[in-house]
Amino acid sequence: MWNIGIVGASGYAGGELMRFLARHPRAKIRAIASRSHVGKPLSEVFPSLSLPDLPLKFVNTTDMDDCDLVFLAVPHGVAHNLVEPLLKNGQKVIDIGADFRIKNLDIYTKWYGIEHKAPQYMSEAVYGLPEIHRKDIKNTSLVGNPGCYPTSAILGLAPLMKAGLADLDTIVIDSLSGVSGAGRGEGALYHFPHAADNCLAYGVGTHRHVPEIEQELSALAGEELKITFTPHLVPAVRGILSTITLKLKDVSSTEQLTKLYEEFYKDEYFIRVLTKDRLPQTKNVLGSNFCELGVRFDPRVNRAVVVAAIDNLAKGAASQAIQNMNIMADWDEKLGIDQPAMYP
Amino acid sequence: MWNIGIVGASGYAGGELMRFLARHPRAKIRAIASRSHVGKPLSEVFPSLSLPDLPLKFVNTTDMDDCDLVFLAVPHGVAHNLVEPLLKNGQKVIDIGADFRIKNLDIYTKWYGIEHKAPQYMSEAVYGLPEIHRKDIKNTSLVGNPGCYPTSAILGLAPLMKAGLADLDTIVIDSLSGVSGAGRGEGALYHFPHAADNCLAYGVGTHRHVPEIEQELSALAGEELKITFTPHLVPAVRGILSTITLKLKDVSSTEQLTKLYEEFYKDEYFIRVLTKDRLPQTKNVLGSNFCELGVRFDPRVNRAVVVAAIDNLAKGAASQAIQNMNIMADWDEKLGIDQPAMYP
Amino acid sequence: MWNIGIVGASGYAGGELMRFLARHPRAKIRAIASRSHVGKPLSEVFPSLSLPDLPLKFVNTTDMDDCDLVFLAVPHGVAHNLVEPLLKNGQKVIDIGADFRIKNLDIYTKWYGIEHKAPQYMSEAVYGLPEIHRKDIKNTSLVGNPGCYPTSAILGLAPLMKAGLADLDTIVIDSLSGVSGAGRGEGALYHFPHAADNCLAYGVGTHRHVPEIEQELSALAGEELKITFTPHLVPAVRGILSTITLKLKDVSSTEQLTKLYEEFYKDEYFIRVLTKDRLPQTKNVLGSNFCELGVRFDPRVNRAVVVAAIDNLAKGAASQAIQNMNIMADWDEKLGIDQPAMYP
Amino acid sequence: MWNIGIVGASGYAGGELMRFLARHPRAKIRAIASRSHVGKPLSEVFPSLSLPDLPLKFVNTTDMDDCDLVFLAVPHGVAHNLVEPLLKNGQKVIDIGADFRIKNLDIYTKWYGIEHKAPQYMSEAVYGLPEIHRKDIKNTSLVGNPGCYPTSAILGLAPLMKAGLADLDTIVIDSLSGVSGAGRGEGALYHFPHAADNCLAYGVGTHRHVPEIEQELSALAGEELKITFTPHLVPAVRGILSTITLKLKDVSSTEQLTKLYEEFYKDEYFIRVLTKDRLPQTKNVLGSNFCELGVRFDPRVNRAVVVAAIDNLAKGAASQAIQNMNIMADWDEKLGIDQPAMYP
Repeated sequence: MWNIGIVGASGYAGGELMRFLARHPRAKIRAIASRSHVGKPLSEVFPSLSLPDLPLKFVNTTDMDDCDLVFLAVPHGVAHNLVEPLLKNGQKVIDIGADFRIKNLDIYTKWYGIEHKAPQYMSEAVYGLPEIHRKDIKNTSLVGNPGCYPTSAILGLAPLMKAGLADLDTIVIDSLSGVSGAGRGEGALYHFPHAADNCLAYGVGTHRHVPEIEQELSALAGEELKITFTPHLVPAVRGILSTITLKLKDVSSTEQLTKLYEEFYKDEYFIRVLTKDRLPQTKNVLGSNFCELGVRFDPRVNRAVVVAAIDNLAKGAASQAIQNMNIMADWDEKLGIDQPAMYP
Repeated sequence: MWNIGIVGASGYAGGELMRFLARHPRAKIRAIASRSHVGKPLSEVFPSLSLPDLPLKFVNTTDMDDCDLVFLAVPHGVAHNLVEPLLKNGQKVIDIGADFRIKNLDIYTKWYGIEHKAPQYMSEAVYGLPEIHRKDIKNTSLVGNPGCYPTSAILGLAPLMKAGLADLDTIVIDSLSGVSGAGRGEGALYHFPHAADNCLAYGVGTHRHVPEIEQELSALAGEELKITFTPHLVPAVRGILSTITLKLKDVSSTEQLTKLYEEFYKDEYFIRVLTKDRLPQTKNVLGSNFCELGVRFDPRVNRAVVVAAIDNLAKGAASQAIQNMNIMADWDEKLGIDQPAMYP
Repeated sequence: MWNIGIVGASGYAGGELMRFLARHPRAKIRAIASRSHVGKPLSEVFPSLSLPDLPLKFVNTTDMDDCDLVFLAVPHGVAHNLVEPLLKNGQKVIDIGADFRIKNLDIYTKWYGIEHKAPQYMSEAVYGLPEIHRKDIKNTSLVGNPGCYPTSAILGLAPLMKAGLADLDTIVIDSLSGVSGAGRGEGALYHFPHAADNCLAYGVGTHRHVPEIEQELSALAGEELKITFTPHLVPAVRGILSTITLKLKDVSSTEQLTKLYEEFYKDEYFIRVLTKDRLPQTKNVLGSNFCELGVRFDPRVNRAVVVAAIDNLAKGAASQAIQNMNIMADWDEKLGIDQPAMYP
Repeated sequence: MWNIGIVGASGYAGGELMRFLARHPRAKIRAIASRSHVGKPLSEVFPSLSLPDLPLKFVNTTDMDDCDLVFLAVPHGVAHNLVEPLLKNGQKVIDIGADFRIKNLDIYTKWYGIEHKAPQYMSEAVYGLPEIHRKDIKNTSLVGNPGCYPTSAILGLAPLMKAGLADLDTIVIDSLSGVSGAGRGEGALYHFPHAADNCLAYGVGTHRHVPEIEQELSALAGEELKITFTPHLVPAVRGILSTITLKLKDVSSTEQLTKLYEEFYKDEYFIRVLTKDRLPQTKNVLGSNFCELGVRFDPRVNRAVVVAAIDNLAKGAASQAIQNMNIMADWDEKLGIDQPAMYP
């Protein structure tokens, strides 16, 4: 049994971590921290987590000493101040934010616009996408948990990158996100009367998930590449649907593509490659760690369209972080997160 | 380990039964039946339940021989044809529909407009609201699982009925339901463009949950009573919020009422009596077996307002049915359904 | 042609006023004010109102000198500081807030918790529900525009109050409101991920619309009465549905009730009394000044259930205010607001 | 004053036509037809259109003799049987369906899979996008009203096509549509509990709007081109947001692109080219004939991203059809459709 700490536990990702961990057979939530809620009972901040066997109160960020592993569910720019003491204390760390995803300091500095305070840990950290980096995750003490959009985009493109079938200069990724992706903080864009029935694109060409996607796809392809990524806000609470379009080489049918994906993910419990007549729907994965993938080849234009669906707060954040924890602890990867989606 | 059968497994309540049972430590889904889907894989009808360890196919309604317990998730008028052979075969039955909730044959006939085909089992059946009838549930082979609205209304009024504090002629119940309450069958009222942003009352004075609520409240009060119940459809997927208004005798404050409720439900794991500054919200219980209750006393008019929130498909149907199963099997009542709500 | 001023034009009611007034044949928006947006173009605050022929900029609250009529769309406690100079200047005023709805100063003080700064105008002001007070509206310079909930409740009960058929001690009003009713200001309850799929009751027994409803119903009934009113928030953008339950005297059928309502409202263009097989739905009135009413008599309990549907921002605020303006100006009451609802 | 007929008046586009035409100063709805509702009053099929001055009943499709112009709001494959008698009778026709949008018979046959019954009128028909084909619309008796997706895509790309700045082999269009785009007919995908909170792509590479977009863009570019178009269903009632990505030649900044668009659309009342800091949101155009356009240039990848927002039932169908009617009648193009969006 591991004792678990969560820093930034009052946000949506923190809430999801607790929802899963509260019923995890080998992990026990030991300490939850949130700068703005110290002393408050958990049930006040998350009435949905008013569980008799979870009588937690918020503590200070630094009160994590007796935790075996600490999840950092804090904005970028906060985590890099917290990791060193934890790691030096022999604790494991999974950063759900962005501070330890990027390997290249210059790229971090350019896209995030701040100085990284713990650059010495950037290369040591492992990018926590289990389907791609499982072995490295197992042997590290510091995981940079992937962003929600990148999880969908990288899982959606990995088979094509690895197979060398893509024209790397043609990748266009349009992603739709539910509003929970913007977090628990209020704002005019997320006010119900405005957000309901509204669709919009944002951060065109400038979203911070761009370098993260490019880093991982380039590594998979064995060649530097650049993408166009356009995120969208849609009137759903949860879910990410990424539609990826690119030109291919040496592919002639949807069947061929589907087989490639089935083969690539054949041992992956949480990845569902859909066969010809079905396409991913976010509704089928909400609340779960599953990812649906569907591919189509359009011979008219020699392009593939890949569609990936995940829950942004689960596979795109909290349950994937727990999947990483399970791997780091050498437990069954599915422990505590092997639940089907809530439907409808 | 019990083998479980589900008849009517293709509907929403059936889907929820499978979502919970798939991870139940002592129950195994053995057979799922649906008239219209015989032979189809489960994953086609519920892509969200595409679990590698749940490779089920739909069978005929009658193929339930080796099940220890059978859930009937079928419309009223169907279940009463199915129970006799099951019971005679020594199997336990939980009917999620309405055929075994009503004790009085005349009332059933009047409100449901059909002839009951197994009236001999009506009195034997136990009304499956564990917080009220736990002992009888433990000793029966046939449970009539409560309706979604009645679950919220009865839990909301039981303490006042038992305490004899209510003016029984003044009970007004207005309930809001998410659209999933109308089932998986399509209809103009449930078409997304119509249902979104729409609120309406329906079945005013004629909804079939009226006699069920009256039967249980009368029993609790020890006196025949009649209610006014008005159900509403609101643009949510799940959730029931019932607001109950009634005149009281000998009550003078909200604190007094709250204490009464806290005392009444003090041993009930799944009931949360909210204290003074909070009121129930459906969002806090979605996907879970929990029920939130809040009470207010208004001295201006000498009336109480009681608010109850549940998930119509969970505590209002599937997870409550599993709670009943756990009681019938003499297991821990919480097995398989002790999950917090999904938030947000 | 009247020149129109709007104070508090940056809120939702202000936006709706402009949406209707922009195409009103005899009114011209001359000045719009908002403390926090002085100098900004309208199109920045309401991109939906980026009309080439509406090149407005926000000015100060006091820059309304050359307006024939000024709408005050400000919170209670603000309007009572603004009316005197306007009225003394010969301008007409319609206050969409609550400062001039209540006739009794003590009641205002008790429910609103502040001192009224212009009590001398409270009796002069006319409660702006045209279907009830048309004649007085025509002859006043100061209208207190009704609250959204009261509009639905009073229209729903007026025929019964006037006819003396109600047991006045039994009135229970449960109202559902879309989230826009809470205004444009952000808050945790209105954050999309929280508000979506959520239902809740609030302000139980304490909502400030209670005295307003009681004042008008008492006047109609010719007798002091008290109500129980419970407002609810539901996951819709717009719309109010009020369900009113009460005991009746000397009524025996739904037909009798329906006739009473049809007769009462027979000359009212904006009121639709639905006949037996239909009940109000908010979707049918969104964006419009129409009100749908439906009545049912339940002989089992000798109670009536009345359902009323309006758009909270239109008939519940802005378009009703314009209806009042048309009456004050002795124009056709329908000018500028005679549009059907947007469906779906 | 023109007399207007509407065939297929019971669908969503028909409803929107009536919502606008009911208040059009020079058009009068004379006859409404719907195969399945003959004899029914309009108010039964569209309660939102229960207007005292619109006492219409549904008639047969063929009862349109005394109409000056007939709108056909019927599925493709129906309109091509109806136009000849109307045109020969000297009546004008606007087909909101797809039968008269495609100029090339082979392409129609290939994509629609049926034989065209009135091919002689295909070349005579004018593609009814006023911003592109205004002059031809003025002089024709038969308009093929554009599809919803194509309206957004063509308006979004026209300036680049005309300017010759695009790499025509790189056009990727991802469009999001509200559920009303699928029409009033029910289906599992559009059932509220399924559609709410759900996002999906469909018709990948095979949607029938592909040839329509290619035809118009090719004409604008003066060169045959092929696109990749992926439509998506999102949980909104209305609205289309199209995000278009393509490589450019000789462009170096967003400012340059924005100027190109502002210049191209400088005389277009219904097109709003947003300047640098704003991007289109569907919420700003719902219920209106306006189109919001925003452009960005990403020098990292030498690509433009163009975003277009319209209301699928208004500028994407009904109000654009009325805009075409106004042009055909030589009236002010804005008559009857010059309303701002409903917000929020």
